Amino acid sequence: MTISKDLIDAARGAVPCDLNLANCSLLDLLRGVIRKGATVSVRKGIVAGVDDGLRAERTIDLKGQFLAPGLVDSHVHIESSLLAPPEYARIVAPRGTTAVVADPHEIANVMGYDGMRYMLAASEGLPIDVYLMVPSCVPATDFDTAGAALYASDMHPFLREPRVLGLGEVMNYPGVLYKDQKLLDKIALFRDAAKPVDGHAPGLSGGELSAYISAGIGSDHECTSVAEALEKLSKGMYIMLREGSTARDLRNLIPAITPSTASRFLICSDDRHPNDLVDEGHMDHALRLLLAGGVDPIDAFRIACLNPATWFGLKTSGAVAPGYKADFVVFDSLEDFRARMVFKDGVLIAEDGRLLVEPPGARPPARDSVNIKWLTEEDFRIPAAGSRIRVIEARSGSIITGEKIMQAKVESGLCVADVARDLLKIFVIERHSGSGNIGKGFITGFGLGRGAIGLTISHDSHNMIVAGVDDRSIFRAAKHLNKMKGGMVFAVGDEIVLDLSLPIAGLMSDEGPAIVVDRLRAFEEIFVREGLSNRTPLMTLSFMALPVIPKLKITDKGLVDVERFSPVNLFAD
Amino acid sequence: MTISKDLIDAARGAVPCDLNLANCSLLDLLRGVIRKGATVSVRKGIVAGVDDGLRAERTIDLKGQFLAPGLVDSHVHIESSLLAPPEYARIVAPRGTTAVVADPHEIANVMGYDGMRYMLAASEGLPIDVYLMVPSCVPATDFDTAGAALYASDMHPFLREPRVLGLGEVMNYPGVLYKDQKLLDKIALFRDAAKPVDGHAPGLSGGELSAYISAGIGSDHECTSVAEALEKLSKGMYIMLREGSTARDLRNLIPAITPSTASRFLICSDDRHPNDLVDEGHMDHALRLLLAGGVDPIDAFRIACLNPATWFGLKTSGAVAPGYKADFVVFDSLEDFRARMVFKDGVLIAEDGRLLVEPPGARPPARDSVNIKWLTEEDFRIPAAGSRIRVIEARSGSIITGEKIMQAKVESGLCVADVARDLLKIFVIERHSGSGNIGKGFITGFGLGRGAIGLTISHDSHNMIVAGVDDRSIFRAAKHLNKMKGGMVFAVGDEIVLDLSLPIAGLMSDEGPAIVVDRLRAFEEIFVREGLSNRTPLMTLSFMALPVIPKLKITDKGLVDVERFSPVNLFAD
Repeated sequence: MTISKDLIDAARGAVPCDLNLANCSLLDLLRGVIRKGATVSVRKGIVAGVDDGLRAERTIDLKGQFLAPGLVDSHVHIESSLLAPPEYARIVAPRGTTAVVADPHEIANVMGYDGMRYMLAASEGLPIDVYLMVPSCVPATDFDTAGAALYASDMHPFLREPRVLGLGEVMNYPGVLYKDQKLLDKIALFRDAAKPVDGHAPGLSGGELSAYISAGIGSDHECTSVAEALEKLSKGMYIMLREGSTARDLRNLIPAITPSTASRFLICSDDRHPNDLVDEGHMDHALRLLLAGGVDPIDAFRIACLNPATWFGLKTSGAVAPGYKADFVVFDSLEDFRARMVFKDGVLIAEDGRLLVEPPGARPPARDSVNIKWLTEEDFRIPAAGSRIRVIEARSGSIITGEKIMQAKVESGLCVADVARDLLKIFVIERHSGSGNIGKGFITGFGLGRGAIGLTISHDSHNMIVAGVDDRSIFRAAKHLNKMKGGMVFAVGDEIVLDLSLPIAGLMSDEGPAIVVDRLRAFEEIFVREGLSNRTPLMTLSFMALPVIPKLKITDKGLVDVERFSPVNLFAD
Repeated sequence: MTISKDLIDAARGAVPCDLNLANCSLLDLLRGVIRKGATVSVRKGIVAGVDDGLRAERTIDLKGQFLAPGLVDSHVHIESSLLAPPEYARIVAPRGTTAVVADPHEIANVMGYDGMRYMLAASEGLPIDVYLMVPSCVPATDFDTAGAALYASDMHPFLREPRVLGLGEVMNYPGVLYKDQKLLDKIALFRDAAKPVDGHAPGLSGGELSAYISAGIGSDHECTSVAEALEKLSKGMYIMLREGSTARDLRNLIPAITPSTASRFLICSDDRHPNDLVDEGHMDHALRLLLAGGVDPIDAFRIACLNPATWFGLKTSGAVAPGYKADFVVFDSLEDFRARMVFKDGVLIAEDGRLLVEPPGARPPARDSVNIKWLTEEDFRIPAAGSRIRVIEARSGSIITGEKIMQAKVESGLCVADVARDLLKIFVIERHSGSGNIGKGFITGFGLGRGAIGLTISHDSHNMIVAGVDDRSIFRAAKHLNKMKGGMVFAVGDEIVLDLSLPIAGLMSDEGPAIVVDRLRAFEEIFVREGLSNRTPLMTLSFMALPVIPKLKITDKGLVDVERFSPVNLFAD
């Protein structure tokens, strides 16, 4: 932060301010009161004074409406919205979000350093501030083939980026407990620079939690119970209350918020799908839940605005006071919070849900990301090397799977799908290095009667994953994903029934939210029409290659028994 | 901060801890509760866990006593204790203070960069943590001759010192408002490094306060009223509640402390004399005042321990949690707080007021600091260039003076003292560069009947200041101060009635607290015996050369009318 002499002059009244926001009910989060009839004076995007009697070129009478700092999403994977940062901003800015702290873990698994650079470039000049945390766990495991790796030695340049705040969620908690040197090197790099290190420690407690924290990890967004949150608070963590699309923990944790603990909570979305952003909202939704849950409004806004600034070291954010960024949300009800006006850097950027400024276009990524070996239909054959097979048992709405031993259906020496028993073939096709690796297996729990579903989003390595009934459809789906440079597809035989291209790292669209949301709804409708028993087949499929969530998963190298932390053979004979 | 693999192992229970502090009532400041029957486990000076069931080599049963983090003095000039840092630590450590944030403004005015380096070296390895702020206003004014100057260019090396936290109190608020480039350069240096910049803005409000804050100044310890504190809170400042020897503002500010504001308050002593430290206490005294004033104990300890860690960015201080420093105070009453045991870095360093470790000796300063031109008795003559003189009107217990026009008493063409009218001669002798500058004037308000009082403490430039009845005594006092390399003296004719040598920069003793306190008491007794009307003659005298406090002051260059911000002639004719 440089010192603005112009701001000093404006605050003293020696030069006029640009804007007075008069007659507002100011949420004074620093003092903890609501100040009626307040006037906020802004000069060149910065607050010059509050109730200091300053003149301004322009005055907006807010007629008693509330004015608070803009809302902050303290932990988000923007990639989960399937939108590039500018298009993401288009949805969340009008809802009162003026800053997000993004961990570009997904794109980093595909494109590594380049992915991080892409997210920095693509989030320049938006109507929200996009801060970044450097993904700490790329690759996530050694079981599969990620597109990239990020070591401490790759991270140094990011320490000099003003919008890079710290190290992203340290998911690999066993790595901390067992003192994995590569991981400790990353943590030490940011800790030594006095920058925040975010945590991710679902269910960790007692000595193991203490050990994890003692390494310098200071936040957690994985709490699901009050007891878990209170232990983590006591041990020094900031607790991010998560309201994502799938993980919706916020409501359960409200009883942990008291006047005495409120300063240590934040809100975040983690993973939130674009339709939920459009239908339900973003941090405005989380804030409504807090307020409806009985959290004192001052505490609720501290959680949404001031506390993230404290945790992330953003010294001029999160409050309305001299020298702070002029990022505000104006609203008229504490009972039903809706952003009426949103100011970013002193400029009115949204009103009644409409964005008044045009974000820059989604910039193309550094390179295409789908790089698979030349395939033929024959590559999807599974020779019958036994009669009993290990089948992944998927459950609708869950990323945890079971393992089911089933009798293989064999035709001409090949194991094939069996619609009657809801048995599909599933493949993970390595898509980063053109290695030709294909993991082959079977899955149940989809209820797909024909065709194949495929996508290039498959956590965390984001290889291509396709499940289907027949090799023709599977081959067609894979070919089409390749042609689109990534995306989602439903193919039946030679026909592409529906697709959504995600050419940015195979994860994000280059289109706006309207198109993406429409296409996702069309997928939902088709899957209903096709009679699938799984209500979230794309989401379910996208987690079948994540070999850290029990029990049976599949990577480009084959099946993995997560509980035994070991590869296993398809055939159980 | 590096990561300790040993600590990770200890927290997990893979290696035993060094110490368990069992059965305590833990003030869990992070969660905001008192946890009875808690066990705190320590490994190599760091908390490994709390109630994590860890084994330890040694266990101390605290039998239900309270355990809290060590107390922090958030703003202190150690020089005001007249003690070198190790001897200062000897008094405050047994009272529960485990860290102080010192602004070595006084020694810096004498010795500049060397003074700052001396304080760093002399505070190494003490039983308390001494953190330093770099003095921002050296020299304080251009009216007199300080021993040194500190510009931004001198400050860069200190940014790399782990115990240097930020920039010390920016007293020169007009310099901020009028954009003094040399001052802004200093603030920008620390602000850009994301380090705290302490403020000092007595009575500043409205637009001027906003302008001052907008430059990046984030704390204030000069509030004297609740309204002042609340405005400063609203505008983003951390408020340090001061309980010094002279300035005692803490009690008046207690009504500003509510559950909603408590996180923005700290406590400090600013200037506290050694006798008050010995008789009344240090931060333990301030804490007793908070508790007696009805502040919730959790909030009171947050103010004393956790909030300073937040403001100063001390990420592993201020709480008892994994990875935090094992600095604790054990006590048995919240009604009458007294430190029973003090642990520093996991070691019991004090018990029932006794220090159990020996601090290192006071290291000699880099050089002697009293450098005056060869003087003779004749140098103290004041030729009568007029008949009416401007006299400094001193008031007991105050640093503000009046100006009184009096008839000069003239003998043989020289203006002389006049005991009958309480009119003393006063001299400020430049002592840094041997320039020979002597400011000459008259003062009233002491009631001294014979002899001369002199000292080398005179804010902020700490030139030699002597007031007396006759030239012989004045000369003797000055000569003795020179011989002692600084200190305090009362001389009558050729006799030194009492002295205290302060050879460290002319500000601090090289003796322990017992000797210094005894000697100060002896001074007090003598001044009573001599019948002085001023009850604090040494303190009063030490502020007569501070040309920023109204109305009439004297520097080595002569009299200054502070209200007119201008030098004035002794003679008013």
